[in-house]
Amino acid sequence: MNHNERAEVLIDALPYIQRYYGKTIVVKYGGNAMISDKLRETVINDIILMKCVGINPVVVHGGGPDISDFLNKLNKKSEFINGLRYTDEDTMDIVQMVLGGKVNKNLVSLIEKFGGKAIGLCGIDGCLLKAKKLKSDIDLGYVGEITAVDTNILNTTLSAGYIPVVGSIALGEEDNKSYNINADICASKIAAALKAQKLILLTDVPGVLMDPSDSDSLLSVLRLHQIPKLSLEGVIKGGMIPKVDCCVEAIRMGVENATILDGRIPHSILLELFSHEGIGTMIY
Amino acid sequence: MNHNERAEVLIDALPYIQRYYGKTIVVKYGGNAMISDKLRETVINDIILMKCVGINPVVVHGGGPDISDFLNKLNKKSEFINGLRYTDEDTMDIVQMVLGGKVNKNLVSLIEKFGGKAIGLCGIDGCLLKAKKLKSDIDLGYVGEITAVDTNILNTTLSAGYIPVVGSIALGEEDNKSYNINADICASKIAAALKAQKLILLTDVPGVLMDPSDSDSLLSVLRLHQIPKLSLEGVIKGGMIPKVDCCVEAIRMGVENATILDGRIPHSILLELFSHEGIGTMIY
Amino acid sequence: MNHNERAEVLIDALPYIQRYYGKTIVVKYGGNAMISDKLRETVINDIILMKCVGINPVVVHGGGPDISDFLNKLNKKSEFINGLRYTDEDTMDIVQMVLGGKVNKNLVSLIEKFGGKAIGLCGIDGCLLKAKKLKSDIDLGYVGEITAVDTNILNTTLSAGYIPVVGSIALGEEDNKSYNINADICASKIAAALKAQKLILLTDVPGVLMDPSDSDSLLSVLRLHQIPKLSLEGVIKGGMIPKVDCCVEAIRMGVENATILDGRIPHSILLELFSHEGIGTMIY
Amino acid sequence: MNHNERAEVLIDALPYIQRYYGKTIVVKYGGNAMISDKLRETVINDIILMKCVGINPVVVHGGGPDISDFLNKLNKKSEFINGLRYTDEDTMDIVQMVLGGKVNKNLVSLIEKFGGKAIGLCGIDGCLLKAKKLKSDIDLGYVGEITAVDTNILNTTLSAGYIPVVGSIALGEEDNKSYNINADICASKIAAALKAQKLILLTDVPGVLMDPSDSDSLLSVLRLHQIPKLSLEGVIKGGMIPKVDCCVEAIRMGVENATILDGRIPHSILLELFSHEGIGTMIY
Amino acid sequence: MNHNERAEVLIDALPYIQRYYGKTIVVKYGGNAMISDKLRETVINDIILMKCVGINPVVVHGGGPDISDFLNKLNKKSEFINGLRYTDEDTMDIVQMVLGGKVNKNLVSLIEKFGGKAIGLCGIDGCLLKAKKLKSDIDLGYVGEITAVDTNILNTTLSAGYIPVVGSIALGEEDNKSYNINADICASKIAAALKAQKLILLTDVPGVLMDPSDSDSLLSVLRLHQIPKLSLEGVIKGGMIPKVDCCVEAIRMGVENATILDGRIPHSILLELFSHEGIGTMIY
Amino acid sequence: MNHNERAEVLIDALPYIQRYYGKTIVVKYGGNAMISDKLRETVINDIILMKCVGINPVVVHGGGPDISDFLNKLNKKSEFINGLRYTDEDTMDIVQMVLGGKVNKNLVSLIEKFGGKAIGLCGIDGCLLKAKKLKSDIDLGYVGEITAVDTNILNTTLSAGYIPVVGSIALGEEDNKSYNINADICASKIAAALKAQKLILLTDVPGVLMDPSDSDSLLSVLRLHQIPKLSLEGVIKGGMIPKVDCCVEAIRMGVENATILDGRIPHSILLELFSHEGIGTMIY
Repeated sequence: MNHNERAEVLIDALPYIQRYYGKTIVVKYGGNAMISDKLRETVINDIILMKCVGINPVVVHGGGPDISDFLNKLNKKSEFINGLRYTDEDTMDIVQMVLGGKVNKNLVSLIEKFGGKAIGLCGIDGCLLKAKKLKSDIDLGYVGEITAVDTNILNTTLSAGYIPVVGSIALGEEDNKSYNINADICASKIAAALKAQKLILLTDVPGVLMDPSDSDSLLSVLRLHQIPKLSLEGVIKGGMIPKVDCCVEAIRMGVENATILDGRIPHSILLELFSHEGIGTMIY
Repeated sequence: MNHNERAEVLIDALPYIQRYYGKTIVVKYGGNAMISDKLRETVINDIILMKCVGINPVVVHGGGPDISDFLNKLNKKSEFINGLRYTDEDTMDIVQMVLGGKVNKNLVSLIEKFGGKAIGLCGIDGCLLKAKKLKSDIDLGYVGEITAVDTNILNTTLSAGYIPVVGSIALGEEDNKSYNINADICASKIAAALKAQKLILLTDVPGVLMDPSDSDSLLSVLRLHQIPKLSLEGVIKGGMIPKVDCCVEAIRMGVENATILDGRIPHSILLELFSHEGIGTMIY
Repeated sequence: MNHNERAEVLIDALPYIQRYYGKTIVVKYGGNAMISDKLRETVINDIILMKCVGINPVVVHGGGPDISDFLNKLNKKSEFINGLRYTDEDTMDIVQMVLGGKVNKNLVSLIEKFGGKAIGLCGIDGCLLKAKKLKSDIDLGYVGEITAVDTNILNTTLSAGYIPVVGSIALGEEDNKSYNINADICASKIAAALKAQKLILLTDVPGVLMDPSDSDSLLSVLRLHQIPKLSLEGVIKGGMIPKVDCCVEAIRMGVENATILDGRIPHSILLELFSHEGIGTMIY
Repeated sequence: MNHNERAEVLIDALPYIQRYYGKTIVVKYGGNAMISDKLRETVINDIILMKCVGINPVVVHGGGPDISDFLNKLNKKSEFINGLRYTDEDTMDIVQMVLGGKVNKNLVSLIEKFGGKAIGLCGIDGCLLKAKKLKSDIDLGYVGEITAVDTNILNTTLSAGYIPVVGSIALGEEDNKSYNINADICASKIAAALKAQKLILLTDVPGVLMDPSDSDSLLSVLRLHQIPKLSLEGVIKGGMIPKVDCCVEAIRMGVENATILDGRIPHSILLELFSHEGIGTMIY
Repeated sequence: MNHNERAEVLIDALPYIQRYYGKTIVVKYGGNAMISDKLRETVINDIILMKCVGINPVVVHGGGPDISDFLNKLNKKSEFINGLRYTDEDTMDIVQMVLGGKVNKNLVSLIEKFGGKAIGLCGIDGCLLKAKKLKSDIDLGYVGEITAVDTNILNTTLSAGYIPVVGSIALGEEDNKSYNINADICASKIAAALKAQKLILLTDVPGVLMDPSDSDSLLSVLRLHQIPKLSLEGVIKGGMIPKVDCCVEAIRMGVENATILDGRIPHSILLELFSHEGIGTMIY
Repeated sequence: MNHNERAEVLIDALPYIQRYYGKTIVVKYGGNAMISDKLRETVINDIILMKCVGINPVVVHGGGPDISDFLNKLNKKSEFINGLRYTDEDTMDIVQMVLGGKVNKNLVSLIEKFGGKAIGLCGIDGCLLKAKKLKSDIDLGYVGEITAVDTNILNTTLSAGYIPVVGSIALGEEDNKSYNINADICASKIAAALKAQKLILLTDVPGVLMDPSDSDSLLSVLRLHQIPKLSLEGVIKGGMIPKVDCCVEAIRMGVENATILDGRIPHSILLELFSHEGIGTMIY
């Protein structure tokens, strides 16, 4: 690439940098982008760049595969009910150790390796996330739903220049037990509580496709009012339903817009934020 | 107890509260005080009370027994060399999960249960503790020695009203790997870096005893210059030697004084801080 | 008292310390608690302890007996009309000297003796209290009623870490003369203007008693709506009426609650604030 | 006076206003300027104007005549030893009441009458002035010499926009008793502790005169090095000696300059500060 | 003038200084007061004095005569349509150079010569003034009307202690071209946006006269409701109409009052602000 | 360019963005980069991007060609002595109008057009640059050398988020006249006073060339100690000498490094700051 082209790219990014300056963007980090070493590095670098150009990124992560791995080592079977992990007390212990001790701290470590400053938190810290037992026909154990978000520790660490990295665990508001929470929902609730500019959900699909077999049929932009129709028509279906729901919920609570983004594309966050077309499905 | 007596105790505490107001006290929390549910609650309550009366407490913890337990579950044997756990890469993973994900977050959770506000950190967060591989004749794996302390995240969270709780893990300054660090040493280094007023090491002994079989022979006060003689005479010996060393090191780096305290006595921290006699061995 | 008991008292106080942290409490200081040297010291120590545990105490005082003493020395008779001192210009001069120069500065001096930091003020300073002549059938001279409270000097000194001590004199809004004000009313008006958490009136009785001859008949808690009935029944009578009125007035203007407290009991303020039962009559 | 002349005076004052902007000036207020109603008003207005044009004035006062008057009323004789009032415990009580309760608060009241905001303090408040018993061949009772000045309460009230008015009483550093202090010395010590720009001593003479019988022989300017010679020659003599000493002491401790000013001339402070010639004797 | 008289003037100014303390006053500076060297100095000194006594002055200026002079040098004729200069692109260039480069910087220079601190701005700086082309039957070129005022740069420089001096040019909100704006209107819009206490328009007439041939017929005070009648009667006429309109507009947008002042009288601003009668026509 | 390449450029810039975060960079803007409309836009966009990524850019400019043009219009000949414009009083007037009123405000306008916030200043504003007449064998009129830099107005506007744009005029410290200053020297002195990280001089050559006829012979890096030898050898010669001198002077006064950069290359600032090789000659 020659000089002119390099400069062009930086200057093309300028209006987007101006638009996002000082804004908060919550990134739900998961899927292949968290498993592949190479992709992990590109995501981390994207997040550091966001911070450098004046954006306040907040990273939210789960860690399903790591949890399952670890349960395997302990000869404990992972059991799922309607897509949610059945979480007895012993399993919750493992969830907390894997999310809070392994995945979380490793992400912090990686950010610092590339010159960023990060703080690893989970919903227990500073009472960030309070929860109660999720209502469900079949008992799911310590699977919770969020009842309150106290963003104080996020604001404190953001304004001190850190990138907060949050594992998806919450504190039981009545029993002070730890609860396992869906990471997409954590991200959505945190974005809403922070009145974030944007929620980004990193996934393993290109976004919402009109025709799932054709990646060129990506819907770049989706308005709230189009969603019911597309759901009825089956365009939004399967695993995409709860993701779209998370986006809708966040927007209804004051987030400007939300994007479902393909985490398998290197630097997909940068490309989404700092170029004209964007590359995922943006809902607003 | 009647009214007069209750009031007397509060008023007796007044000059000590005035003395410690706005000062930082680092508490190394370990031993039985961390294992027994009952003692754990009294320690946590003591720490919250410290915060309430204007002291800035910082809690540092290890978690040896929990680590060993967990390695057992995985059929991995704990191996110790000169009192230090041999820590290969897999073991380090477990150490990080247990300290950072289990012990640390459970302490935070407990503080919040009793009305305090806490943040769980380890040395990786905000580059709080940097380390390199500990020099040793026999290879110890990922056992490290601290090379730098960045207190910024502690100051940020303290001034935002939180009690920081720190697990004894550090970030390799060259390899960005996690290192296992002795928790007493973590506490000592952090106290020094914060120019703390006091370092408290909670242990399972009454303090330094002239005659180990007689708990009435406790040395309440120990001056730096007395230590070499007492070491030669064998009064300071065994597991007490590294603890005294930690205290001496902290004082040499600017901490006002350090106390080795019996964590088995309920509310030993309160009794030490807020009554005339104190109950451990204070070194200054 | 043994170690355990001492620790217990401190820990029992913890939830109350947490509740009052950062709150403002106005204490009307008078009666025997101001005359007896011994009681004076216990009150002063209670107030310093309040400050130490993060409460913002404001002390308001009168000084009737000292004024009468001094008038006696000058062979001037104290004259009371409906319980209010007839205050001609000469008498007002004496009132101002005794309250502002003697009682006030001696309290400040005593607080400093025990390690607190205090500032002695009267309503003239910083236009804290403005007044006009009290309307009355019989002329009372320079007896005033408060027309405005400017809390700026209280906020300034509180946030600089001082305990303000206020003598019950106000500045005539029209004539710039000094006016003699009832100290209970001063305390009530100041508490209201500061939106204080609590008003405490120290008196020489145990509180509101159902049967005045039986100190066990103390009403620990009194709700606003119960007061008219108890007044009609004569349970609230005599000198208790204006005290209850002060409390009611303060609560109506935004103070959370008000307590009539027996200043003859040593450390009655501490016992009221930091123990479960409390010992006076709390109105809310 | 016509328009042009009025404007001329204001504009002539401009360079002086610029010079003193943000500077602290300590005014010792005493003598006829404090007794005559008319002069009192002009002094008070001068001080308010100082505040308005960005100067930080601090007023220090004694009150000898008022004290003597009041002792007379109590049939107590004023006794002076080497120009200092013998001050037994009873007398000290009266001194404190008259200075702290009467003179001080009346000055505050007067400042507020003319639109200023003032706070009345004495050396006891905020431990502003600490003292010990003045060494003397003949016992003088509670006459003290200043051992420490804590300017915190002055800085707090100045920066909150108030004019501090300070009565010349100090707190015994060992016995916590009140001590009677010479007001010129109070002003000098406070000016030094505040690193004031200027100390002004209001007196009943025109300044230092070469020929005491000829007011045209006023020395407008006096340099430190000239003073010993003028003392030997008897030009500085009698009551002028301690005043000049106060000025010299203040300058040695860091005050820029000090002026002995005739308080009998209306608005002498304004004329000294805001016109070319000045009207007193300035020492530097 | 003797001492007493000098002091009298300063003291007479005191209540006015108190009234204006911390308030913002916008001065439209023009006419003879800007052309005569002597008058220019008196205006500048008045403005510095305002700053010294705690007022926040903002100076707004045009520069018609200088522009015409310069156009002459370039053999370009000044052309006026309904009192507004026809401003083609070349002329606008000259306007910008003369106002922004010459008149503006020379005023700043003069303020600094007399000890003030000033910053020279025009409406382009910090997007202070946005404009669009003035609607008009006959094309006026780059003559604009103000569409938005961003006072941020004024507040920034005022609170840093500077006197902002603003040339009457604005930035085209659509074309980013420079626009020539009437300076009276600039001053009025800026005063409104700053919620100023007062707008002062310096002119070459004494104010609004009942009888234009008799300067004693000056209307010192004019209420908004009187204006329509006086306009109908022809008392307000000619060049006075737009000036009165500016005042009315400013008051309607929140400015307390506005004064049309004779800039030919030396120190007319001081006399207006700091003496009882004032000397212009005040509208409120 | 494809997605990957775009992302690559942004990520390549990351370490440079991290390095310059919060640092001040002074850009001397001149030559073709200021004359060509196209280049002007690229420079302005580079500067805005600098601000967006957390750098504090300060722009310093002259305007020789515009000045000559304007003098031509007035039939005034530009006269140069040793490369410096002879500046009589009339010429200085024109210099001030062109630099302060035309070039400066047009740059501000352009920055705002592309979404930045700028403030146009010259050395007169806030006494930013003080000067005296440049000593010279032949009289140069109002050509000055800088004697003092007051960076207060730069710090004020930088911290309020503005990009300061400074025209190269200074205020005579003795005569309060305006002085014409070389813009390279202005930039160097301002960089030194701000303790800037970097000084960039935009010129019309590629940098220091070993062989002036071969642009591949560019010296990318030049250490201070190499300069004398290269001067002797004639590698640094002609117009390059004063530019190198400016850089050396700035570095000696505390600027980290200085770069002579080819302003004819579009986005040369971006390429220099945010890519590995850089494109000019950096001196340190």
